[in-house]
Amino acid sequence: MERPLDALSALKGKEVNVLLKDGTNLTGKLEAFDIHTNVVLSNATSGSKKLDQIFIRGDMVTYIN
Amino acid sequence: MERPLDALSALKGKEVNVLLKDGTNLTGKLEAFDIHTNVVLSNATSGSKKLDQIFIRGDMVTYIN
Amino acid sequence: MERPLDALSALKGKEVNVLLKDGTNLTGKLEAFDIHTNVVLSNATSGSKKLDQIFIRGDMVTYIN
Amino acid sequence: MERPLDALSALKGKEVNVLLKDGTNLTGKLEAFDIHTNVVLSNATSGSKKLDQIFIRGDMVTYIN
Amino acid sequence: MERPLDALSALKGKEVNVLLKDGTNLTGKLEAFDIHTNVVLSNATSGSKKLDQIFIRGDMVTYIN
Amino acid sequence: MERPLDALSALKGKEVNVLLKDGTNLTGKLEAFDIHTNVVLSNATSGSKKLDQIFIRGDMVTYIN
Amino acid sequence: MERPLDALSALKGKEVNVLLKDGTNLTGKLEAFDIHTNVVLSNATSGSKKLDQIFIRGDMVTYIN
Repeated sequence: MERPLDALSALKGKEVNVLLKDGTNLTGKLEAFDIHTNVVLSNATSGSKKLDQIFIRGDMVTYIN
Repeated sequence: MERPLDALSALKGKEVNVLLKDGTNLTGKLEAFDIHTNVVLSNATSGSKKLDQIFIRGDMVTYIN
Repeated sequence: MERPLDALSALKGKEVNVLLKDGTNLTGKLEAFDIHTNVVLSNATSGSKKLDQIFIRGDMVTYIN
Repeated sequence: MERPLDALSALKGKEVNVLLKDGTNLTGKLEAFDIHTNVVLSNATSGSKKLDQIFIRGDMVTYIN
Repeated sequence: MERPLDALSALKGKEVNVLLKDGTNLTGKLEAFDIHTNVVLSNATSGSKKLDQIFIRGDMVTYIN
Repeated sequence: MERPLDALSALKGKEVNVLLKDGTNLTGKLEAFDIHTNVVLSNATSGSKKLDQIFIRGDMVTYIN
Repeated sequence: MERPLDALSALKGKEVNVLLKDGTNLTGKLEAFDIHTNVVLSNATSGSKKLDQIFIRGDMVTYIN
């Protein structure tokens, strides 16, 4: 792997987990991301809460796996 | 979807939910946004509080859905 | 509306409310703003405290309505 | 007024109040400022504490009035 | 050693420890990093929690060793 | 005075006080500074603690007087 | 001394103390640094904890002495 963002490219279209800086954990299908780690998930959930499609601001991301 | 901001373009003119970093939840019609995720909502409400048209500074946004 | 700052242009010369990140609420006439959301209000008040003309640093702004 | 910094230009040489993000309030004569809102005050005081000439880092400024 | 990032280059493919700003400690094989210290670990663990491959946003890193 | 940094130029070689954002107060001779307010003090002390020559990262500075 | 980073150049290869923003104190030999104050220490220790070679992200540095 050359660059960290290559890892996100490989995850596109797959189910991912996004941990936010406020401790919230979001799960959904990775639809899009950019170099700021702005992220769009579809069918997102946060625990039992359904969020459907969600745009997450990149500076709120702790990690994605 | 190519870029995360495409998700916001698709939401323009529709009812969205904006979660702020201080935990406030705002609901309203998405009138405008930019690459900093500065956002303008019309007919915005925060719980029972009516805020009408509101300009939200982008760095306060956690997510938009 | 094309860009979020257009909403602020439309408010120039009018009474606005500025919520700061420390929770302070300022009210006054919007005299000037820039792309950083640096803001100048005239006849500003914060609750019962009169602040006259005030320059607010943009990164302290949560929202303007 | 065209730009927010015009309000600071008009205050140069006058007594101003600077509220910092840590809640400290400084009063003194505005000697200089720049686009980052770095500020120099002369004869500055913070409550009963005399600080003489003081350089304040711009990112610590909440507002100036 | 010329530059700090040279130390990370030397660690590529090896087991590293990443301390995050929220106090979380992650261990795994260093797969990739960039100048923002965005980091990808494989076979990552956080205590007894298995995280597999993980993308860590650079601004969350305190140190890597 | 034209620019805020002129005030720091005038203090070079003199005893200054640097208040950090974590509330620490450092005293010493101002040896060097730059536009980020990175600062080097010699013979620095923090209360009764001797720190000799010290490099302070600019973003930690609240004010210098 | 012309610039603050000159003080770090003079410390290269010597034992230094790095205070982090979370209050952690690291001691070790200064192997490398850059303009962001990213720092690499060898034989680093934090109290009784041995960290060997460590890459510290620059924005976590409070001061180096």
